Formats: sequence, structure tokens, C-alpha cells
Amino acid sequence: MAYSITSLNELTAQFEKLPGIGKKTAQRLAFYVITAPEEYATRFASALTTARSKVHLCSVCQSLTDSALCGVCDDPLRDKSIICVVSDPKDVLAFERTREYKGVYHVLHGVISPLDGVGPEKLKIRELLARLSDGGVKEVIMATDPTVEGEATASYISRFIKPMGIKITRLAYGVPVGGDLEYADEVTLKRALDGRNEI
Amino acid sequence: MAYSITSLNELTAQFEKLPGIGKKTAQRLAFYVITAPEEYATRFASALTTARSKVHLCSVCQSLTDSALCGVCDDPLRDKSIICVVSDPKDVLAFERTREYKGVYHVLHGVISPLDGVGPEKLKIRELLARLSDGGVKEVIMATDPTVEGEATASYISRFIKPMGIKITRLAYGVPVGGDLEYADEVTLKRALDGRNEI
Repeated sequence: MAYSITSLNELTAQFEKLPGIGKKTAQRLAFYVITAPEEYATRFASALTTARSKVHLCSVCQSLTDSALCGVCDDPLRDKSIICVVSDPKDVLAFERTREYKGVYHVLHGVISPLDGVGPEKLKIRELLARLSDGGVKEVIMATDPTVEGEATASYISRFIKPMGIKITRLAYGVPVGGDLEYADEVTLKRALDGRNEI
Repeated sequence: MAYSITSLNELTAQFEKLPGIGKKTAQRLAFYVITAPEEYATRFASALTTARSKVHLCSVCQSLTDSALCGVCDDPLRDKSIICVVSDPKDVLAFERTREYKGVYHVLHGVISPLDGVGPEKLKIRELLARLSDGGVKEVIMATDPTVEGEATASYISRFIKPMGIKITRLAYGVPVGGDLEYADEVTLKRALDGRNEI
């Protein structure tokens, strides 16, 4: 094609790599950046590299942070004896939006999914068991997604925790089955927290 | 909220400024960048600043380019005696996809829209008339969007061109009325080109 702009194509290609962004949308976004004030591109670029280089896993709960500890683990008012186990850092945000949960988290960074080649060793399960063996934890809430893989991951991990004599609970089926925790609304998540049952 | 990561929030805010990207999507994209390989953020950032600083308007047709002239104006095989007037640089890409049009373009960068405060003086109309007064142009195809503003802009400009004795045509109503040229498919655009009528 005669009308081809190398640097614009490169930017479109980078947008296209984002999840849920197709070719037309990527092109539209790239054109927007080109025509927006120059300051926007500069700020966007620095936000990208800053966030990518600063954000790392919290050494305790494995969620994302740009400090030594994440805001939850670092908060003396949070109840360290309850750990809510989630599969994704975004799920922590979802729970925080309820403003109801006062315990801490543990992020697994995925669920066991043999078809995708994700075995238990790829998840932060070892780190969770290490936290539990330090003592002081009274309850573990298994808050993996209410999908087949999420359920399987929850029961897999529960087998290791049961012998430690720690109470294990699962979110109540207030959360819509087959859904994605990230999109659950605050009220549903609050109900799910309230109605949690011992496994 | 206890769980707040400054650099991640800043990145989310930048994504949210993009057209059609809401809060949830912006957060999802920011999380993707954080967890993707570091090289991605670096390449994305450099693509942003490179594209923004390199891409500018073609001095002849006002479409986007990162060279002195755009690929179309620079091509000796393109027929410089036919100018297709479009409102947006993206429309040039749409026409190029038809692989049918062999003339050149002129990008107005908008349409006359008093409600949005866009008067004729904000569009690249002066540049178009300057090109026409240089002579050598036999036909001007008015290919602004088939909307009320697009039609009004086309007839506004036509009033200045008519006295020059240059043939003015409008795309045939093969293009769906009220639509957006950017999303027209190749066949529809080709039909619209073939059936163009003198104004």
C-alpha cells in the first residue's frame, strides 16, 4: 500500500497486542495518540515504563505493589489471621471495592489448568503454605473464580491446609457461576463474603 | 482504598484517556502491561513517543506522514489531476484499501460543525484552494462523511471551487447514509467511487 507510515504502523502493532484490542481499534487509538497534544504521548510513554519497572509482587501476599509491601499487608489495622486466596491481582481490587473485607490476601497468579499447561508448581501455592506454617492464621477463604479450574484449584490447595487445622471457607454461591470475579458487583461480592461456608 | 498503586493508577489514567476505553478496560490493559514481558512496555513507550514526534502533516495533502511527503503525494504513478477530499486521515486508509483509486487526496481534518465550534477556518480549506489555484487539477471528489455536517462541508467548499471551472463530484450514495467512512467496506467504497456524480 502506498500510504504506509512506519512509525504509525509500529504504534498500531503495539496497541494490537493488548487484550481485546483488534486491528481497527488499534488503528483508531494510534491515530488518536498522533493527533492528541504531544504531552499526552510523553506522559503515556513514561507511565508505561514507570509502572512496568516499579510495580512488583508484594513479598508477603504476592499481589502487585510499588512499595516494599502492598498497601494491605502494610496496614496494621488489617486482620492478618484471615487470608483471602485469589487467582489474580485484579480480584484484590474487586474485594477492596466492597469495603467490607478486613483480612489480608494471597494472590496465586493463575489457576491450575492442565490444558493450558499450568500446573500447581506455577502458582504461588508454596508461598501460601509458607505463610500458613508460620502460624497465626485462623481462616483461609478460597476465593478463586467460580469456574471448573477455580474450584479444582481451591480443593487442591485445601488438601494441604486441612491437616494444619486451619478453617477453610469458600465464597458463597452468590457469585454467578461461570463468571469472572473481576466483573462481580460490590453487592454480590459482599453477599458472597457474608455467606461463606466451611469446606 | 488501602490497595492503591500510584504508578499503576497513573498508567490506568492514561489508558482511560483513549477514545472508547472505559475505567474497567483501562485497568485491564494496565494490568496486562504490568504482567507482560518488560520488553513490551519499553517498545510500546518508544513507539508512542516516536510516532508522536515523527508523524506530521504532508505539506501537500495534509494527511499524516513521517517523511517529507506522504506515500501518495510522493508516488509518481498517482494521478495528481484528481483530488479526493476527505475529512479525516483514517479515510485515506479506507480508500487505499479499495486498491481502486489512483488519484491523490486532501485531508480537511474535520467537518464544519457550528455546534462543536468548528468553523471553516479550522479546516484545511485554504490549503485545498491553494492547490487548486496552482492549476492542473481536473476533478475534485468530495468524499466527506455522508452525514449532515459532511454534506454541508462539501457544498460549502464546492461554492469556492465551482468558479474555477473544475469538475466537482460527490461519492455515490453507495455509502450508507449517517455512517462513518472509516468503517465502510471495500466493495461499498468502490461502488461509491464508480457511481460518483457531478455536483
